[in-house]
Amino acid sequence: MNNFLLPLRILFSADKEFILSLRNLLGFIPNNISLYNLAFSHKSSAEEHVTGIKLSNERLEYLGDAILGAVVADFLFKKFPFKEEGFLTEMRSRIVNREHLNKVAMKIGVDHFMANSSSVKTRSVYGNAFEALIGAIYIDKGYHITQRFIIRRIIQHHVDMDELESLDVNFKSKLINWAQRERKAVTFELIEEIDNGGKRLLKVCVKVDGEEQGQGEDFSKKRAEQIAAEKACIRQGII
Amino acid sequence: MNNFLLPLRILFSADKEFILSLRNLLGFIPNNISLYNLAFSHKSSAEEHVTGIKLSNERLEYLGDAILGAVVADFLFKKFPFKEEGFLTEMRSRIVNREHLNKVAMKIGVDHFMANSSSVKTRSVYGNAFEALIGAIYIDKGYHITQRFIIRRIIQHHVDMDELESLDVNFKSKLINWAQRERKAVTFELIEEIDNGGKRLLKVCVKVDGEEQGQGEDFSKKRAEQIAAEKACIRQGII
Repeated sequence: MNNFLLPLRILFSADKEFILSLRNLLGFIPNNISLYNLAFSHKSSAEEHVTGIKLSNERLEYLGDAILGAVVADFLFKKFPFKEEGFLTEMRSRIVNREHLNKVAMKIGVDHFMANSSSVKTRSVYGNAFEALIGAIYIDKGYHITQRFIIRRIIQHHVDMDELESLDVNFKSKLINWAQRERKAVTFELIEEIDNGGKRLLKVCVKVDGEEQGQGEDFSKKRAEQIAAEKACIRQGII
Repeated sequence: MNNFLLPLRILFSADKEFILSLRNLLGFIPNNISLYNLAFSHKSSAEEHVTGIKLSNERLEYLGDAILGAVVADFLFKKFPFKEEGFLTEMRSRIVNREHLNKVAMKIGVDHFMANSSSVKTRSVYGNAFEALIGAIYIDKGYHITQRFIIRRIIQHHVDMDELESLDVNFKSKLINWAQRERKAVTFELIEEIDNGGKRLLKVCVKVDGEEQGQGEDFSKKRAEQIAAEKACIRQGII
């Protein structure tokens, strides 16, 4: 679609550049531009609304996180018809985990959309904004367009499923093997249990020679330790 | 709809009774009956498929869990347009937590659908089968019919939103317990008393290690402290 075919409301809009960039990213012309503006607004730069709540992207992030989870769950369910639930859950968490979402967000240029924002920029700000963007698309266009965006524009272009599948998951044993070679002591410690509506969310940390190297949280202790161990492996340059 | 209007394929089906019960529960006639049979099959009674995997409802449960999460997230996002992310997350977890889902599953009669199954019956078997049912509806009929089922047949009939909202969550004790584990000091301070036509409006703040984490105001000191504590809990990621 070239500019000639743009609706008049956009051609003469003050947000024309923003809308055109969004169209390139999304593959469609958004309806409610303010939703997308909100998606790229981090709470550190949020203004207070008359109702007293700060207009940041946190509500959209909450929504987008859930929608992304559903779409990815469905995608994997159909892609791997003979795989069991444990495999699907593991693959899903490799796709939607914070670190991976931060990477995807950078690949699709979420940082450029936030360049003018005065907010504090850590990598997770972009991953969160990416989830908020999913929430914005869902509110603006509904489930099916959001699903198509996630599958065609994100998973098929920016997620290497084969690599994710073949990832050697066992970061804990990688870390322990490395530590034995290096004659270092590895310990895992439970640092918090959060009662999350009946389920206990466990937060663990891993220490190498008494020094904390990473934290992980999950409802499963094993999984929380894996997350912490993965961070320690990255930090120690083991993977 | 009476029997006279049933499609012939159902009238002469061996599963007629099952399909009629499902229709009463779902509000529509399912297409792929085997999906619903699978949803009510616990792994303890699962048969092995030629591919080597056991045909139980675990894959459908994995899917249904994600779809339910998305629908409930969307429902709350729209029902509470001025509530912050922390509140929405908390409400969602009160709806989709294991214990609450087990209750809902019993209310809608999931146990009756599993009565002939030889599986071991704990309460969570029913909650899991309920999630699997959501997965089955999603595969059979798509997102919108599933969304309508969850909102109209589950939330509006079997979920007491007011009760869930007013559930006494003692944020003050949550905060204090957390602080003890983390070895931090929590203090509540009265920062202002406003004479409001005879009644005294109290404004308090809560500090963690001397740093303010939230304020609350109410005519009751206890209530004002709860409001402040809730904010601190959200800020610290405790809830």
